Amino acid sequence: MMTELQLRIIEQATPMFLHYGIKAITMDMIAARLGISKRTLYENFKDKTELLLACLEKAEADRDERLGIYYTQRKNVIELLLNVHEDILRFMRNASPAYFIDMERYYPKVYNRYAHEKEMHKQAIVDLLREGIGEGMIRSDINIEVVAALLTLQLELLKNADEIFQSKYTFTEIFETIFKSFIRGIATPEGVRYTDEYFAGHENK
Amino acid sequence: MMTELQLRIIEQATPMFLHYGIKAITMDMIAARLGISKRTLYENFKDKTELLLACLEKAEADRDERLGIYYTQRKNVIELLLNVHEDILRFMRNASPAYFIDMERYYPKVYNRYAHEKEMHKQAIVDLLREGIGEGMIRSDINIEVVAALLTLQLELLKNADEIFQSKYTFTEIFETIFKSFIRGIATPEGVRYTDEYFAGHENK
Repeated sequence: MMTELQLRIIEQATPMFLHYGIKAITMDMIAARLGISKRTLYENFKDKTELLLACLEKAEADRDERLGIYYTQRKNVIELLLNVHEDILRFMRNASPAYFIDMERYYPKVYNRYAHEKEMHKQAIVDLLREGIGEGMIRSDINIEVVAALLTLQLELLKNADEIFQSKYTFTEIFETIFKSFIRGIATPEGVRYTDEYFAGHENK
Repeated sequence: MMTELQLRIIEQATPMFLHYGIKAITMDMIAARLGISKRTLYENFKDKTELLLACLEKAEADRDERLGIYYTQRKNVIELLLNVHEDILRFMRNASPAYFIDMERYYPKVYNRYAHEKEMHKQAIVDLLREGIGEGMIRSDINIEVVAALLTLQLELLKNADEIFQSKYTFTEIFETIFKSFIRGIATPEGVRYTDEYFAGHENK
């Protein structure tokens, strides 16, 4: 169990890592931001890697909770996918490329947790798409496994987005383009209608 | 100008390279297939690389002619894209992965011609998509340059298709999935309708 102070540390440190990357943020800076001594900070987390892991675990737990709600309350598979898309977008708007680059370069062990997740995601996408076909929202004439793999691979491209697009477009813009055209590309006319209505509703907000 | 014999050699050699890869086909085999002496073959093409280049140039010239017809006779951009898709499919159904692998490994100079073409293709796709927006067939709310880059990148994945999909799916199947979901992903409802009708017509044939 986390103590209240540990939770407070995590809540402060998480956006700092996300905005500035992991390398740029020192334990000193985190302690200063919280108005606690470095010693107190180190008593709670023995080093930056441990703190980073705790931040990730908290973020994952929070996200899993939200995903659980989307999943159980879904009207159909497309709505679920669109909610997940929104959730990821909210995260990405806060994360700088430096965060992912630092993670891959300096924290390969932490990064590998993501890699493992990816395999799970691919299977989850395949299962969902199959369900969507049953609902009449996803086209039945697509190869689900190929489509799921293509989505995963496109999302991986995001890591090299700066290189590919020479920094012309933001992470968020590319992710949105991938996801929107992915959903419309596999949706039935009814699924496309649902998607358009969803975006119309969300853009007016 | 090609002589009639040179054209005959190219016509025989092209499908041999495509079906069995470049490495597996020797000048001996080509001469035997044509019922000509090795010496006559070498008098017309000084080595396999020169013959391979001539085969590619002929294939490109033929393809450019077909593309020119699709381009000038297009009813709209989606029809043009679908015709190009069909044309590539016909080519791929004939080409073994060995052909592309050999080309990259043993004929990097020839392979680089393709790489250069790719850049031209990306620009051509951007121009076409813009035209399609004007026709009301392509959605106006997409980032055309990102979308064109994503298509190019997905098509590059084909090269590693065997590794990614562990040979579960053919080249052709993956290419079709990429292209179909790409077009539907960026098309307006009218564009999707056009696409569905096109495929319905072509599958009944």
